[in-house]
Amino acid sequence: MTLTIGVDVGGTKVAGGVVDAAGTVLVQVRRDTPADDVAKTRDVIIELVRELATGYPVEAVGIGAAGWIDASRSTVLFAPNLAWRDEPLRDYVSAATGLPAVVENDGNVAAWAEFRHGAARDADDSMVMFTIGTGVGGGIVLNGELLRGANGIAAELGHMLTVPDGHQCGCGRLGCIEQYASGSALVRFARATARQEPHRATGLLDLAGGDAEAVTGPMVTAAAQAGDPVSTEAFAQVGRWLGTSLADMAQILDPQVLVVGGGVIDAGDLLLGPTRRSFADALAQRSRLPVAEIRPAELGNTAGVIGAADLARRI
Amino acid sequence: MTLTIGVDVGGTKVAGGVVDAAGTVLVQVRRDTPADDVAKTRDVIIELVRELATGYPVEAVGIGAAGWIDASRSTVLFAPNLAWRDEPLRDYVSAATGLPAVVENDGNVAAWAEFRHGAARDADDSMVMFTIGTGVGGGIVLNGELLRGANGIAAELGHMLTVPDGHQCGCGRLGCIEQYASGSALVRFARATARQEPHRATGLLDLAGGDAEAVTGPMVTAAAQAGDPVSTEAFAQVGRWLGTSLADMAQILDPQVLVVGGGVIDAGDLLLGPTRRSFADALAQRSRLPVAEIRPAELGNTAGVIGAADLARRI
Amino acid sequence: MTLTIGVDVGGTKVAGGVVDAAGTVLVQVRRDTPADDVAKTRDVIIELVRELATGYPVEAVGIGAAGWIDASRSTVLFAPNLAWRDEPLRDYVSAATGLPAVVENDGNVAAWAEFRHGAARDADDSMVMFTIGTGVGGGIVLNGELLRGANGIAAELGHMLTVPDGHQCGCGRLGCIEQYASGSALVRFARATARQEPHRATGLLDLAGGDAEAVTGPMVTAAAQAGDPVSTEAFAQVGRWLGTSLADMAQILDPQVLVVGGGVIDAGDLLLGPTRRSFADALAQRSRLPVAEIRPAELGNTAGVIGAADLARRI
Amino acid sequence: MTLTIGVDVGGTKVAGGVVDAAGTVLVQVRRDTPADDVAKTRDVIIELVRELATGYPVEAVGIGAAGWIDASRSTVLFAPNLAWRDEPLRDYVSAATGLPAVVENDGNVAAWAEFRHGAARDADDSMVMFTIGTGVGGGIVLNGELLRGANGIAAELGHMLTVPDGHQCGCGRLGCIEQYASGSALVRFARATARQEPHRATGLLDLAGGDAEAVTGPMVTAAAQAGDPVSTEAFAQVGRWLGTSLADMAQILDPQVLVVGGGVIDAGDLLLGPTRRSFADALAQRSRLPVAEIRPAELGNTAGVIGAADLARRI
Repeated sequence: MTLTIGVDVGGTKVAGGVVDAAGTVLVQVRRDTPADDVAKTRDVIIELVRELATGYPVEAVGIGAAGWIDASRSTVLFAPNLAWRDEPLRDYVSAATGLPAVVENDGNVAAWAEFRHGAARDADDSMVMFTIGTGVGGGIVLNGELLRGANGIAAELGHMLTVPDGHQCGCGRLGCIEQYASGSALVRFARATARQEPHRATGLLDLAGGDAEAVTGPMVTAAAQAGDPVSTEAFAQVGRWLGTSLADMAQILDPQVLVVGGGVIDAGDLLLGPTRRSFADALAQRSRLPVAEIRPAELGNTAGVIGAADLARRI
Repeated sequence: MTLTIGVDVGGTKVAGGVVDAAGTVLVQVRRDTPADDVAKTRDVIIELVRELATGYPVEAVGIGAAGWIDASRSTVLFAPNLAWRDEPLRDYVSAATGLPAVVENDGNVAAWAEFRHGAARDADDSMVMFTIGTGVGGGIVLNGELLRGANGIAAELGHMLTVPDGHQCGCGRLGCIEQYASGSALVRFARATARQEPHRATGLLDLAGGDAEAVTGPMVTAAAQAGDPVSTEAFAQVGRWLGTSLADMAQILDPQVLVVGGGVIDAGDLLLGPTRRSFADALAQRSRLPVAEIRPAELGNTAGVIGAADLARRI
Repeated sequence: MTLTIGVDVGGTKVAGGVVDAAGTVLVQVRRDTPADDVAKTRDVIIELVRELATGYPVEAVGIGAAGWIDASRSTVLFAPNLAWRDEPLRDYVSAATGLPAVVENDGNVAAWAEFRHGAARDADDSMVMFTIGTGVGGGIVLNGELLRGANGIAAELGHMLTVPDGHQCGCGRLGCIEQYASGSALVRFARATARQEPHRATGLLDLAGGDAEAVTGPMVTAAAQAGDPVSTEAFAQVGRWLGTSLADMAQILDPQVLVVGGGVIDAGDLLLGPTRRSFADALAQRSRLPVAEIRPAELGNTAGVIGAADLARRI
Repeated sequence: MTLTIGVDVGGTKVAGGVVDAAGTVLVQVRRDTPADDVAKTRDVIIELVRELATGYPVEAVGIGAAGWIDASRSTVLFAPNLAWRDEPLRDYVSAATGLPAVVENDGNVAAWAEFRHGAARDADDSMVMFTIGTGVGGGIVLNGELLRGANGIAAELGHMLTVPDGHQCGCGRLGCIEQYASGSALVRFARATARQEPHRATGLLDLAGGDAEAVTGPMVTAAAQAGDPVSTEAFAQVGRWLGTSLADMAQILDPQVLVVGGGVIDAGDLLLGPTRRSFADALAQRSRLPVAEIRPAELGNTAGVIGAADLARRI
């Protein structure tokens, strides 16, 4: 059975693993990301690939990174959290390791992992995935393949217009979905209510040392799971927006499966309950017509390594 | 050169034509649609196909109709303007005429026509089309094929959420794009301003016999072309919303070409100017990255016949 | 104890009564409104006043009507449901009956009645009232007097902007509060859901003979009181918008009391529960600062007669 | 002619002046505000009053400060930029200086100054003023008196709901007008566009040393006056929202005059042009009915001293 390497380049950590055709990770290693140094980040990746390739007969390497990747899957055009600009990453890695390589956007990689070995592994044709982190990432599979688009940059789901004249996004526009259905929005909603109505947010504020501004995403999740009403409502707000966006995806793409990933899904039905209700409301006019099921992602943080390795298998 | 028949079933007229492989319509005929009688509508289609097949050696028939079509392209599940409910139209027509047949949603048919023989004929992979009529229809081509979705009902672009808590749509939801970027919206915007500020709308009101409620879409187009400021602004409103939706399509699907069709494009840059500016504003964060061009449809009312005939060629 | 006459001119009925200083209606009569005939409507009012004045020693007459009244309270500038345009109603009535008269907008009359003898009778300084009928009317009392404004037309509360680019109002604008917190909106919301999700609206649809389009306001109230979830949610939607508008009033005018009147208040806490929650949410940043209480109106349909009669007492 | 002292307590400076009955400032002095020290801020005010009172025969002192003031105009309940919480400022100052004193909210003070001696001095009854600074302040004059409300905190105009689910306000709500019609919004809008479309913002970016994040309000004003299109559009965005809020004020209060103050009015018609157009659009349904004129404030930074001194005259 052939083996490939998957590398997941994040803003703080680089993870790499050797993965088999069934999606099983045989070994995995992690390094810190020297995010502001182009050459060092590249070196960390190469060292990590060499190390993994030493112990296993690997045939190719796949690399996932946040950013815009060109249509040939070789160059990182722009990465928001890393110093890369028009970085020919594929050829560097390939030359340095002697392995064929492919580079892919992290949202696409996660979607591919879930399609092949995760929540949508029973689907053979199509799925759409939203990855809810600090921002909102996306990946689309159609006809059994990742949708990359004419210019290589499809599935930029985080910047769909959701609220005209709404909250200003880092991208400059007012009202992108990233401002309503992300981990940042979750924290923003929870902090605001905790500041205004501290007596209702005691569970959450206890975790944050009494300071609403110190609230983090994991605190909102923990407090919500313990029944804190303000944290529960923050998840419901995020879920309602997420549900309407998933409904848009169902109407545009009509995929077999819809997947939601990212740390917020640890909250389970606290997030997905409101998401599914809002989704059903939005599609009420389709009444008895069939529509995709919404599922939580299954592969967690390992999706980046598994998906990148599986893409390497298809070079 | 083989010939096929394309049939375009509208709420008031059924049009049929014989079309060659280059998309040239050799002959075309029209009948009234007996819209509230299932059997008679079917009979009109069959008579029309028989008539056309008498004079030409046709090999197949394609039928386009507004409504939801099942994934096998044989049954009309629901048609908003016709009495059909779970109508096995393909098999009726095929049995009655002895020709292989296919049924397709009208938005898909128009998109296919423009992709093959119209505004996007230079594209070989992907396009998205909005057809702006009374409502908003859509069609998506990816990998050189119509996107039909897992349940046969992809590209329902008219009901994407555009304004939360916005104008109520016929479908029941508040704020579907159909309420902002359609011919109905154009007329609604123009009537409202003509009622409030008649002195600014004299050009338009003259066409409507002085009665704002008598304003129609073609009047708004004619008045705008003659410089009426209220009509011009109504097109600009529609264009601004259309531009943001096209931008969403560029970010989700990244197609080679974006096409806008329907009667409103007769207004030319009065519509497409504001559309393109709003599109560019929405995508400003993509800065120098390439993005699809927005083009007006080229085939007009004939798109239904041409597209259906070309789909018949691919049965 | 002196007596005065109050007349309430509606689109379908003219009601008149003799009222004492304590707000007690000694006698009341009703006539049909000949709404499209200016002279006949005037005659009906005059006959009704003469009839009432025959039996009681009345000193003045007050008249309330929907429409814009000039600053001198003598002329109806415009009435949406009646044929009056610049109608010098006060002088007609006064000349024909020999009684001093005053004309006032119906929203103001209702507010004055509740301030003097109804829900806000314990207030000595200020109140704001929303009257929720087909549309939304308003009245403001400050310094113990009706606020009439520099041009006589203050308290036009129905056309405050509530949802930018929202549902189009009869006035032409998009998103006036009248489209979200009115009886029309209640029916619109309930019909839409009943059409989309009939299985959840059986209670409401039974009352409407199974036809969502036949649903009326009183049906929504009756069904909600019987536990119909779709009707309950329609009231909650209206209440949420009403609560935000009441919060705006509290922040702008800081009155002693806020009153909500009109037929919808028959629904009691089904409307006022969501209204109060939305109001409290909107004012969370004022935390412990005092704010006006929201109360249902107490005088019902009689407010028009009582308020107009009390205004006559102050000529 | 009697003289009074006006004191304007800002977050960085305390200004005080001796003012005559005509609103002429005879002398004015300034000190730094020790903003985080309650006692020192109070001492600075007292010293400044004593100094002014030494040279002039003053009869009373008026003090304006940002914050919520109680209904008796003696206590600062809460001040966002100062350390005061339930501070009995009036009695401290009065005891220390031997002068009768009054405390008033800064938005009210500015409105009173413009009503008595500024842009609305020809009005004898009513005006509404928006003061556009970092945030949005307000003041309302009705019946020739400041509207203070039942609880002393009327005219909190900055937190009216403007965009449901819009940009999150410092107060926790989504979509307060302060997020759309303030100096902060102006800078936010300009920075976002300068970041996205630097080639269109060269005039503005030159002033900011090439760094969009270094853009300030005065830079946007200067660049707009020099023709920079991005800065001009930022003013137009603010003006459009301001116009709709002024229209709400016209419909609720129908005042004689509407005044706009704060640093942004230095931009003149760049702000007030779009403001007036948006105001007229919003009120189109009132057609020929009269409505208040929108005027720029005339007293600039001196309004705080003049208004506070005039209020002292009325103790």
